[in-house]
Amino acid sequence: MRLHQATTAAQLATQLNATLIGDGKLDITGLNEIHHVEQGDLTFVDFHKYYDVALKSAATVILIDQVRQCPPGKALIVVKEPFKAYNGLVLAERPEQRWSDKVDPSATIGAGTWVATGAIVGPGAVIGTNCRINPNAVIGEGVVLEDNVIVGAGAIIGEEAFYFKKTAEGYTPWRSGGSVLLCSDAEVGANCTIARGVSSVTTIGRGTKLDAQVQIGHDCRIGEHCIIASGWHCWQYDGGRLVRISRAGWYCAKPYHW
Amino acid sequence: MRLHQATTAAQLATQLNATLIGDGKLDITGLNEIHHVEQGDLTFVDFHKYYDVALKSAATVILIDQVRQCPPGKALIVVKEPFKAYNGLVLAERPEQRWSDKVDPSATIGAGTWVATGAIVGPGAVIGTNCRINPNAVIGEGVVLEDNVIVGAGAIIGEEAFYFKKTAEGYTPWRSGGSVLLCSDAEVGANCTIARGVSSVTTIGRGTKLDAQVQIGHDCRIGEHCIIASGWHCWQYDGGRLVRISRAGWYCAKPYHW
Amino acid sequence: MRLHQATTAAQLATQLNATLIGDGKLDITGLNEIHHVEQGDLTFVDFHKYYDVALKSAATVILIDQVRQCPPGKALIVVKEPFKAYNGLVLAERPEQRWSDKVDPSATIGAGTWVATGAIVGPGAVIGTNCRINPNAVIGEGVVLEDNVIVGAGAIIGEEAFYFKKTAEGYTPWRSGGSVLLCSDAEVGANCTIARGVSSVTTIGRGTKLDAQVQIGHDCRIGEHCIIASGWHCWQYDGGRLVRISRAGWYCAKPYHW
Repeated sequence: MRLHQATTAAQLATQLNATLIGDGKLDITGLNEIHHVEQGDLTFVDFHKYYDVALKSAATVILIDQVRQCPPGKALIVVKEPFKAYNGLVLAERPEQRWSDKVDPSATIGAGTWVATGAIVGPGAVIGTNCRINPNAVIGEGVVLEDNVIVGAGAIIGEEAFYFKKTAEGYTPWRSGGSVLLCSDAEVGANCTIARGVSSVTTIGRGTKLDAQVQIGHDCRIGEHCIIASGWHCWQYDGGRLVRISRAGWYCAKPYHW
Repeated sequence: MRLHQATTAAQLATQLNATLIGDGKLDITGLNEIHHVEQGDLTFVDFHKYYDVALKSAATVILIDQVRQCPPGKALIVVKEPFKAYNGLVLAERPEQRWSDKVDPSATIGAGTWVATGAIVGPGAVIGTNCRINPNAVIGEGVVLEDNVIVGAGAIIGEEAFYFKKTAEGYTPWRSGGSVLLCSDAEVGANCTIARGVSSVTTIGRGTKLDAQVQIGHDCRIGEHCIIASGWHCWQYDGGRLVRISRAGWYCAKPYHW
Repeated sequence: MRLHQATTAAQLATQLNATLIGDGKLDITGLNEIHHVEQGDLTFVDFHKYYDVALKSAATVILIDQVRQCPPGKALIVVKEPFKAYNGLVLAERPEQRWSDKVDPSATIGAGTWVATGAIVGPGAVIGTNCRINPNAVIGEGVVLEDNVIVGAGAIIGEEAFYFKKTAEGYTPWRSGGSVLLCSDAEVGANCTIARGVSSVTTIGRGTKLDAQVQIGHDCRIGEHCIIASGWHCWQYDGGRLVRISRAGWYCAKPYHW
């Protein structure tokens, strides 16, 4: 996810009362999990399998729980609980929202779009033209629909990612910093669920059609003009390397692109 | 689907600015896909596998994209894009509806029936006596429930069929001309989905019980006194010839009748 | 289920105009199916496989359709249709409810809890502190949520058990006398469904997280700190002896405890 306002490695180290190793003047422009990092991103690492991965990644700044040599062009911020610090930054960037209107005043609804009775549109959502949001569907905060998109009755677009960190207290949810994008002419069937990305944008490609009761997990990227039959559950994890589709389905015009 | 008002082959050919072959005085009383045609129906054909099937079918009038010899007692209407013409006729007969009331004033609700808070009933729906429509369930346009039917919370009855025509622009949805019928004493569990038929009536037989999260695809005909456990996804296609049930389920009092 | 007011075997026999065998002074303090009976409970038996099971069970009073020798410390009430009598008693204890408010005035909502727009809370439900009930979720009658519980958008908690008695007229639903309990820090994903117990309490343990579109059948007891991926359907029947989970899932921190 992009930050609304960039900060520097030094500023963040001060804010977290943490030790800085490396170049404190580097700008942090986004927050990302290790599997999706780009230049300018802050990420975190606290697990033996990922220290080297993180240090060699595209991330510019790394929250880390041990002192390491800092690669050139990067900065390390040493904290006791890197995940907790990271998750706090995501929460600060995207605080929990509570709204009371069916269609939040901060949402944008395009011309010719029908938001049916009982449908709910959260803060900051952007819905294009000539869309149809059927009864009792829910469009979450900041979700984006392009034009001519149909969302079936009871479908839920943009709930938090199902993504947890195991801690001493139990499973702690990562605050999802990502969102959902339904491209033009996409159709989502009744009672489908599409989770927001952990830090990227879960995407349904142009012209793709989902039957009823399809589940699209966080950070999936479904290609264009796919046909996904009812009962498919699509997951993606580990940086796009592994995809599990949990049931045999009907057919797909093009192979999935994640 | 039946037409509200019959037309003749000659009138339709004129309306479509198309060539007529055969008897122009024949009445068109319904629209149907090739797998469900009856006498009086108009159907279409544009695919090499189906020309002979269509010409030998019970259909009275056929939209077709090539000149063929017309069988006796039939009429052919030659158009460049038979599917587009056919779909336009279905859309004219069943135009898209948008409604703003929780229970549309044109719906009929029988005595003793409870439509719970948050439940939605579309235009022209007919609900019998002593039914229970639980919170946030959706009963679509023209759906019919007989008596003593229970629809679980969040269940969606009568969304469009998941049925598309592949065209140069992508997948074009067939407008569904069919409906859904829930016979007496049927029960539909929480968050189930039942799609309307493409041109026939998706039917749940008398006394049949669906657990939560069951999906019944368009044009399925589920028998009487069936028990369908959660997670079943029932599909029917290709004229009733092939049925796929995508998961092992619990049990079913009688075999499925499609 | 516990009765709000105890009765005696003799009083019930009189009420049902039935023959009493054994000690009429015994108190009936609860109603339970044979698989969950405790001392003080009334149960019923009408099937050859279960007569001995019932007579040897912890049940104090047994509705039965044949004359049998009564074990010491028990009472038998002989009726023609034990299930019908039993189900009538459950219905009398938990009559069908119809409510018209989004949040029923008899529900209890803890401090800091958000009931989102479109969400529905039934009579007698008890929701703890700092919970989040997302848009269009449904919390059924008498369902209990402890603290810090999240219920995803469109999730349905506490619909009737999918449990039927085969009778000459078809499948007759057992009236569910049980409920649902979501323990502290539990999270339920979008469009999940959790059925109430037939006579016990369907329970989701502390800290357990359900992804979207998970179904938890009646009387399941899911342990603490479990992670259940989307598309799992968990059932329990036959007294906890057999558990079917109908699909391969992601992972589970501890084995399921039913």
